[in-house]
Amino acid sequence: MHDNAMHHRLLQLLQQHRWAALATSAADATPMASMVGYVPGIHAGILYLHLSRLAAHTRNLLGNGMAALVIGEDDTGNGDPQELARLTLQGRATVIARDSEEYPAARARYLQRLPAAEPRFDFSDFILFRVEVDSARFVGGFAQARSFGSDQLRNMVTR
Amino acid sequence: MHDNAMHHRLLQLLQQHRWAALATSAADATPMASMVGYVPGIHAGILYLHLSRLAAHTRNLLGNGMAALVIGEDDTGNGDPQELARLTLQGRATVIARDSEEYPAARARYLQRLPAAEPRFDFSDFILFRVEVDSARFVGGFAQARSFGSDQLRNMVTR
Repeated sequence: MHDNAMHHRLLQLLQQHRWAALATSAADATPMASMVGYVPGIHAGILYLHLSRLAAHTRNLLGNGMAALVIGEDDTGNGDPQELARLTLQGRATVIARDSEEYPAARARYLQRLPAAEPRFDFSDFILFRVEVDSARFVGGFAQARSFGSDQLRNMVTR
Repeated sequence: MHDNAMHHRLLQLLQQHRWAALATSAADATPMASMVGYVPGIHAGILYLHLSRLAAHTRNLLGNGMAALVIGEDDTGNGDPQELARLTLQGRATVIARDSEEYPAARARYLQRLPAAEPRFDFSDFILFRVEVDSARFVGGFAQARSFGSDQLRNMVTR
């Protein structure tokens, strides 16, 4: 597949979805998998997550900041699931403080995509995170993969 | 929700899907997220995975055996994704050797659900893993969750 077609499909997957699997690590390195809502920033190198401090994945992120996400094309239940497109993103999560300059725009962007989350922005236990993506791997199907660095992702402008 | 209804929905999610997100940890505790095919064993306390030794998640599993999986109901794109059902499974992965007594039945069970994987059973780099699930957390929607231990899972017979 040509680079342009790969970029296009990567952005499509990233933008058409809003629900991803999040992998985090506890202090003792135990992996954890959970589902989270996500919203891409103005380019593919940033993601926003809005998570409850009461959840184990949030404690893991607050502990070491290491986040990996995978966004997968829905399985139809037919054929070989290995042919399904998926995008893995590896990055670092940091808290966006409520009184920071960044907060209002990030909140607005998040709610534009996930308006149902609005009431949770009033809950004191919810935290808005920025994930800076260091690397991504897009798999378009069996034996059809490409890796991208953060510079490349920052050049992929989202709508 | 009643216990019986929770059990029923957990089993439904586990059995109706075949494509899950896998979280693993590298030696330096970096979390990794990827999509994998899975097949439940004869009860909900066992899962089978068939993975290539060339993939990073397989190196992680061979390194420390720690696996977490999350199986999510597909997002329709409408409403609040937090309402979607999802099942997180935490466990330990061990290799099922090709010459073990367990291998033929595990292979047959895997292929019954994922017949397209058959050619990959002839590839020397593919490994069949058994994941023994220590704990599971089923979330039926926002603020609707229940945890299950391995004894409870082993009593949930799959079809």
